[in-house]
Amino acid sequence: MPLPGRLLTALLTAALACSAVAVAAAELPPKPSLADVIKASKPSDWRPLDPANTLYMQLPGGRVVIELAPTFAPRHVANIRTLVKEHYFDGLAVIRSQDNWVSQWGDADEKNPKPLGTAAPTLPGEFTIDLRNDRQFTRLKDRDGYAPVVGHSNGMPSARDPKTGRAWLAHCYGMVGVGRDNGADSGSGSSLYVVIGQAPRQLDRNITVVGRVVDGMPLLSTIPRGPGPMGFFDQPSAMVPISSVTFAADVPETERSKLEVMRTDSAAFQQAVEAQRNRGGPWTKVAAGHIDLCNAPIPVRSISQK
Amino acid sequence: MPLPGRLLTALLTAALACSAVAVAAAELPPKPSLADVIKASKPSDWRPLDPANTLYMQLPGGRVVIELAPTFAPRHVANIRTLVKEHYFDGLAVIRSQDNWVSQWGDADEKNPKPLGTAAPTLPGEFTIDLRNDRQFTRLKDRDGYAPVVGHSNGMPSARDPKTGRAWLAHCYGMVGVGRDNGADSGSGSSLYVVIGQAPRQLDRNITVVGRVVDGMPLLSTIPRGPGPMGFFDQPSAMVPISSVTFAADVPETERSKLEVMRTDSAAFQQAVEAQRNRGGPWTKVAAGHIDLCNAPIPVRSISQK
Repeated sequence: MPLPGRLLTALLTAALACSAVAVAAAELPPKPSLADVIKASKPSDWRPLDPANTLYMQLPGGRVVIELAPTFAPRHVANIRTLVKEHYFDGLAVIRSQDNWVSQWGDADEKNPKPLGTAAPTLPGEFTIDLRNDRQFTRLKDRDGYAPVVGHSNGMPSARDPKTGRAWLAHCYGMVGVGRDNGADSGSGSSLYVVIGQAPRQLDRNITVVGRVVDGMPLLSTIPRGPGPMGFFDQPSAMVPISSVTFAADVPETERSKLEVMRTDSAAFQQAVEAQRNRGGPWTKVAAGHIDLCNAPIPVRSISQK
Repeated sequence: MPLPGRLLTALLTAALACSAVAVAAAELPPKPSLADVIKASKPSDWRPLDPANTLYMQLPGGRVVIELAPTFAPRHVANIRTLVKEHYFDGLAVIRSQDNWVSQWGDADEKNPKPLGTAAPTLPGEFTIDLRNDRQFTRLKDRDGYAPVVGHSNGMPSARDPKTGRAWLAHCYGMVGVGRDNGADSGSGSSLYVVIGQAPRQLDRNITVVGRVVDGMPLLSTIPRGPGPMGFFDQPSAMVPISSVTFAADVPETERSKLEVMRTDSAAFQQAVEAQRNRGGPWTKVAAGHIDLCNAPIPVRSISQK
């Protein structure tokens, strides 16, 4: 009975197609991924790191590259510049690693501290700045619990409050801040830390933030945690020695890390953020429809990857 | 001229006092810290871990303790129970560590995989549940970008949407999820991961989340990251071997980790959250006035610390 057979086949095909449509309706359509956005970006969507504004911290496992943010902490960045030029950090160590919190470096010897040279021993805190001085701000449209407005300031996650007229850098993963005692004016930049866990945004506006690790984060995030609740190392042997901290500008050009950062005021960056805010299929089943400031990717790549 | 001298001193003292008052006005009053809240808590604010619901994963550096969440993933937790009872994980390894993302464990050998025994090879995803089944939910009043309502479900960060009637566990630091392929039904619990960085909340409702690491996180967070963008290890020598995964109930009582978790429906927990949401002085200068779901502390302590 060829006809009924054909009819049956046709019906089955229709039913299967219908079922397939039903399944497909539950799937998200494919969208460019973050990798796709990076691949499709133009050279003008990227900027090189400024060697005069980039630190190299040499650890046994390799080089940590830190981009400084003088707009947000001019006095502290200047003081760090002095410390670095006078080789203050060379021979010091990572003295603290606290899980889901920070790794911190500086001088472990409180009793007999290394002289700070011509650097200031303390500076007034630079916790916030006049937001009019933050001229390279690109707003993130997503809402934030810690600040009325958030976004990116030339490659750094930042926040601002139009009512107070202040702007500040946000404590996201990889951001570098200035350790201090209780006094707001007790820091100098001679002890620095990096965020290695969930963004401790409650520290925003309480700490001078000076920059962001753009390469080498695992060298700081995988350090075995120190004993005790704050993660300080009690044994010098547990500390990670810093052989040197230098400005990229003071390293021969052939030995520099050739990195570039996606411009956070570019259209490509908007696409990169959207690729994370609303991921497409097939893996993703439900698009978040939102992105937290500290989940927004700030792509960094080797210039050779262009 | 004693009188003018005394006057000058008095004036100077008044001026300094005035200045001190001005500074003090900018300081936050002291408040109970998280440590204070824990210290002041009552025994009834805590619950012990249920040995029948607690996994011990033995790594070279020590024991990772995972509390399971059968309410949110009954079928996956049951499947993991089968796998554990049949010693599936013993001799496997942590096969992936991706910075600011996850560490993942399971079978590295895709070509010749270890038999799953009587466990199901795949299960339908348990990405969300009927929120009426989440009966131990305590709302966090703070707003969240990823979900209309967030809070804690018996010690686990969770979210819910009253409109859809669904609830789910949130991808905070330390949460454990089920690795899967593109298919929503392609996971089984034989490969698990833990969040080791900024909460990837965009994964919420896309993954079956089965529990939380309550002790031993540094054993998973400090693993050197694997090469390549996803952090898989290409060399077996880089993998961290798992000698065993067992239920606490199957370990002699004297060898169990004596831990208790602060009840997330207790008044003490509300105080713990508030201690982080609005920190007091003297260190903190500006209280955040907000806490992100994934920054809310879920205290765990040794029972001997009582």
